[in-house]
Amino acid sequence: MGNADLVYPSSMNVECAHQVAIPPPVPFFKSFASNLKETFFPDDPLRPFKNQPLSKKLILGLQYFFPILEWGPRYTLQFFKADLISGITIASLAIPQGISYAKLANLPPILGLYSSFIPPLVYAMMGSSRDLAVGTVAVASLLTASMLGNEVNASENPKLYLHLAFTATFFAGVLQAALGFLRLGFIVDFLSHSTIVGFMAGAATVVILQQLKGILGLEHFTRGTDLVSVMRSIFSQTHEWRWESGVLGCVFLFFLMVTKYFSKKRPKFFWVSAMAPLTSVILGSILVYLTHAEKHGVQVIGDLKKGLNPISVTDLAFGSKYLMTAIKTGLITGIIALAEGIAVGRSFAMFKNYHIDGNKEMIAFGMMNIAGSCTSCYLTTGPFSRSAVNFNAGCKTAVSNIVMAIAVMITLLFLTPLFHYTPLVVLSSIIIAAMLGLIDYDAAIHLFQVDKFDFIVCMAAYVGVVFGSVEIGLVLAVALSMLRVLLFVARPRTFVLGNIPNSMIYRNVNQYPNAMSVPGVLILQIDAPIYFANSSYLRERISRWINEEEEKLKSQGEMMSLQYVILDMGAVGSIDTSGISMFEEVKKNIDRRGLTLVLANPGSEVMKKLDKSKFIDDIGQEWIYLTVGEAVGACNFKLHTGKPGHATAELEAKDNIV
Amino acid sequence: MGNADLVYPSSMNVECAHQVAIPPPVPFFKSFASNLKETFFPDDPLRPFKNQPLSKKLILGLQYFFPILEWGPRYTLQFFKADLISGITIASLAIPQGISYAKLANLPPILGLYSSFIPPLVYAMMGSSRDLAVGTVAVASLLTASMLGNEVNASENPKLYLHLAFTATFFAGVLQAALGFLRLGFIVDFLSHSTIVGFMAGAATVVILQQLKGILGLEHFTRGTDLVSVMRSIFSQTHEWRWESGVLGCVFLFFLMVTKYFSKKRPKFFWVSAMAPLTSVILGSILVYLTHAEKHGVQVIGDLKKGLNPISVTDLAFGSKYLMTAIKTGLITGIIALAEGIAVGRSFAMFKNYHIDGNKEMIAFGMMNIAGSCTSCYLTTGPFSRSAVNFNAGCKTAVSNIVMAIAVMITLLFLTPLFHYTPLVVLSSIIIAAMLGLIDYDAAIHLFQVDKFDFIVCMAAYVGVVFGSVEIGLVLAVALSMLRVLLFVARPRTFVLGNIPNSMIYRNVNQYPNAMSVPGVLILQIDAPIYFANSSYLRERISRWINEEEEKLKSQGEMMSLQYVILDMGAVGSIDTSGISMFEEVKKNIDRRGLTLVLANPGSEVMKKLDKSKFIDDIGQEWIYLTVGEAVGACNFKLHTGKPGHATAELEAKDNIV
Repeated sequence: MGNADLVYPSSMNVECAHQVAIPPPVPFFKSFASNLKETFFPDDPLRPFKNQPLSKKLILGLQYFFPILEWGPRYTLQFFKADLISGITIASLAIPQGISYAKLANLPPILGLYSSFIPPLVYAMMGSSRDLAVGTVAVASLLTASMLGNEVNASENPKLYLHLAFTATFFAGVLQAALGFLRLGFIVDFLSHSTIVGFMAGAATVVILQQLKGILGLEHFTRGTDLVSVMRSIFSQTHEWRWESGVLGCVFLFFLMVTKYFSKKRPKFFWVSAMAPLTSVILGSILVYLTHAEKHGVQVIGDLKKGLNPISVTDLAFGSKYLMTAIKTGLITGIIALAEGIAVGRSFAMFKNYHIDGNKEMIAFGMMNIAGSCTSCYLTTGPFSRSAVNFNAGCKTAVSNIVMAIAVMITLLFLTPLFHYTPLVVLSSIIIAAMLGLIDYDAAIHLFQVDKFDFIVCMAAYVGVVFGSVEIGLVLAVALSMLRVLLFVARPRTFVLGNIPNSMIYRNVNQYPNAMSVPGVLILQIDAPIYFANSSYLRERISRWINEEEEKLKSQGEMMSLQYVILDMGAVGSIDTSGISMFEEVKKNIDRRGLTLVLANPGSEVMKKLDKSKFIDDIGQEWIYLTVGEAVGACNFKLHTGKPGHATAELEAKDNIV
Repeated sequence: MGNADLVYPSSMNVECAHQVAIPPPVPFFKSFASNLKETFFPDDPLRPFKNQPLSKKLILGLQYFFPILEWGPRYTLQFFKADLISGITIASLAIPQGISYAKLANLPPILGLYSSFIPPLVYAMMGSSRDLAVGTVAVASLLTASMLGNEVNASENPKLYLHLAFTATFFAGVLQAALGFLRLGFIVDFLSHSTIVGFMAGAATVVILQQLKGILGLEHFTRGTDLVSVMRSIFSQTHEWRWESGVLGCVFLFFLMVTKYFSKKRPKFFWVSAMAPLTSVILGSILVYLTHAEKHGVQVIGDLKKGLNPISVTDLAFGSKYLMTAIKTGLITGIIALAEGIAVGRSFAMFKNYHIDGNKEMIAFGMMNIAGSCTSCYLTTGPFSRSAVNFNAGCKTAVSNIVMAIAVMITLLFLTPLFHYTPLVVLSSIIIAAMLGLIDYDAAIHLFQVDKFDFIVCMAAYVGVVFGSVEIGLVLAVALSMLRVLLFVARPRTFVLGNIPNSMIYRNVNQYPNAMSVPGVLILQIDAPIYFANSSYLRERISRWINEEEEKLKSQGEMMSLQYVILDMGAVGSIDTSGISMFEEVKKNIDRRGLTLVLANPGSEVMKKLDKSKFIDDIGQEWIYLTVGEAVGACNFKLHTGKPGHATAELEAKDNIV
């Protein structure tokens, strides 16, 4: 490395070097305001409102909260045809799924139907996604069951449990709407992709485990959701297993999986798998009706009461001593539901290339759940499975949700008795079939291949959920993700740069093995903002780099000793006062060794701070360059005109003592 | 901007563009190990041990833990002369300060002397700083008083209180040593410079407030440390104020301040301010002895029992029901003390240009406190004031600590009776005089000028400590600092780059107003690692940049529409899977607009991930360039040979769903 005749790729002289500009000063308030804007209004939602008449502003405002006013007028018959088909399709999926998930949440099955009636209507008016199909989701249902179940036993005290469920839904809605109104949508982003993959898979596993109750036709079952306690409770009562329901369950599960596989192979037959659940409910009910299997240990849904959602405002248990539990449940389930809904909506919006405003969506979700909690619904969001069916069925607008709602309404008004003989085991197989789709091996493998740390986060979420509880898994994964961000800042990477042959370009020698080091000059790149969290690490690390370089030169018997240390600041996004005093110390240290510190390409933020802190005068404008190339050029120039690097080492105590 | 004849500063053609290298693959375990090393062993402590014979290794190991073995043999008489003087000087400061701070901690005054005997001896053997003077500190003493005081009343139950203080000291020591052994020294770094400035000032204020008790000669005083409750308790008992002690206190405070000012003006008379406290103690005692002022409401220390530290191992109250309080107190005071000690040691090491190993220091502090807790000492560290005196007195090695310890020992053995008549009010003035030095206005002003956010953190710490409690202030400040780091990552800044005239250099147009935009090309720089926390923000922000650019071009009636979007990845230190899927979405979005995405200068980490995730093939090697200049050159070339940017938009559902 560094052989003499390759030293001066840049046969440039210092004169043509460019000045590093100090950004024009911005009044504090202005920059503060712009920071606030970037933090809370990155998507600039008020842009369309600019210089419009008041009336127009009013209309735009209404359209902002009720997108239906915006696209409604442009609605056509072709659209309706498409929406009608997709609406009916998702209804046929919504009814059995709704009932199943309600059972999963230990709530009366009818609630599943209620929840597929009002919320979709609300969303159709307020939501901005054209493909999202609203409904209840397994994970949130399970969470409700486990979190409320810890306090109140659903079977012993169903009324209180029901009211708490409504209350939790209410608070979930309030949280969601609040996040939207306060523009805090980005909180959802802290559930990283890998967290959600692991979390979803874990939740699906737990849900499937819960279904073993139905499949095996067990009367009693643990309230715990973790693998261990489920397994214990299953194998502690092997004598109670019922082969009838077992067989039935496996048959239907097989049927569902086959149809799913078929539709996956032949996308145009999407409706096969979409219809399968309803079909199996009908077949199952008929079978039970004919064989009277309900008398032979096959549990059935039983009576569903006719009629639309009863009002449940008065049931919100604000006075209950379990209020805190309800709030906690609401907040956690609310966030989870939000994350799934937003992600699903966003993905489909991307295919069709239209824009979704996350914060607006949150308001829509929030309102839909608040309205739901007042009309006997529990937590709803945009489930992936159902939305995918809706998308495949070729829906055009949120009208498909309205169609589904109407279909559910008709069911509620006239068809509920038909579900009397529906065997629970069929519902269990429907849930299992749906859940198996949520365990995304490929994504996990992809994580493992691309980013080991993301994989660890993912696994932490999975293991945490399966062996601990849903909350444990979630907290674990989020904490790990945070830790990663903090570690990135606390331990920034530093590289030695070398010259790419026949160019003025200097790059990381590990990445570009052919990059040549420049004799007498050590070029370091710092790869993160310089903050209190890493300033003392960087101080250590830089002096270690210098030591190593000097030793290397000694061992190689280089004729030229180290003269200059160039810090490439291109990747230093920001710096705080700890960082600046770190620089002052590094400067003193380097001066003391008789070397010269040179800065290359400091960004606007950094230059501003260095200027304010007078460090620029300390290091000297002539030692700050626009590019590493120019800095090296200048160093070589000085080296060969024999001008030494000035070393000023005035030591003040004060500003180094904390 | 963008006027046509300035478009091609780089009249280069694509051919000579350099390949962006994918870094040579490193086996996972290897990179993992090196990450671990950077995280926990950034200073590479094992380097000297490499390829040494076992015996040598053993010696090095001993020398690592007992630096005295390393420098002891080289100790000379000249050194001893210097250390003798400085040792006596700091002893004369240590004795009154020790007594004062012990009173501040509601502990028997004699403990202050004990604590200046054993711990300095331990540190002299294990510590690596040559200038640190070991002793008790006001802040930690106050913290002990307030935290233990909340549970146990020192005056009602002195024995238990004393034992808890020893226990707290023990756990502080254990924590400090553990942090050192586990190489977790960097935890201290999370107390940023601004946090410590604010915290110290706040603590000093609180300590001064506490002294009003002594100055006004009050019998009863609040146990609260916050401004409000102190003021209330003072003005609720104005009738108990004693003018005698008030006058005495003000006189001595004035005397101390004057000497301090004098020594500051004339550094060679450092010993004047160093001797002042002892002088005022002597004067005060004589005065009281002659005037019998102790009978006129001037409280005195009273009897100090003769003799060296009694063993207190058996007093460690592990069984006590207050154990948790003791542990909590120990941990918090331990961290605070550590932060001060490390910072002080580091600063003086910098002046004399020798190296201090933070983790090693922690082990020394820890051992010294564990030993102390077993020999009737309470928490000690390296106070700034005393160490500064030590430094000014020209100490050469830790032997000055040994000298101080011996001086204190002599005091303990023979001179304690002399302190019988020492008035408490003198001690109060000594504390106040010392504390006033800790309120660092200049630093706060500097923070305000350089970095508003750091100033806010500093103020939060100050206000929190003064109006709330020490813990509140601390937690507040640390939380704010963390928030800043997270916000930096959650909301990275993005810039538009322009061409610096007559160069191939592209820089932020806000920083370089003369930088020219290139028609048909939008160049964006991302200024932070791309993580789950900011990926969806960046997605929004980038598309917003594109919208704005297209609108601008329209409004300007530019003949050339937008064709290429170049992302300068130079400052993107790292990327995770969420970031990669963000890129895939951005790519699709850009393709759909008929534009072409070009990457410039992706770093090693980023290239590795992009390669593993196959995104490189997706975007195409030919659209990744080593520098922005080459990317622009290529774009211009393609633009004018009329080769359009290929736009592939294959949509897979799977990897975009949560």
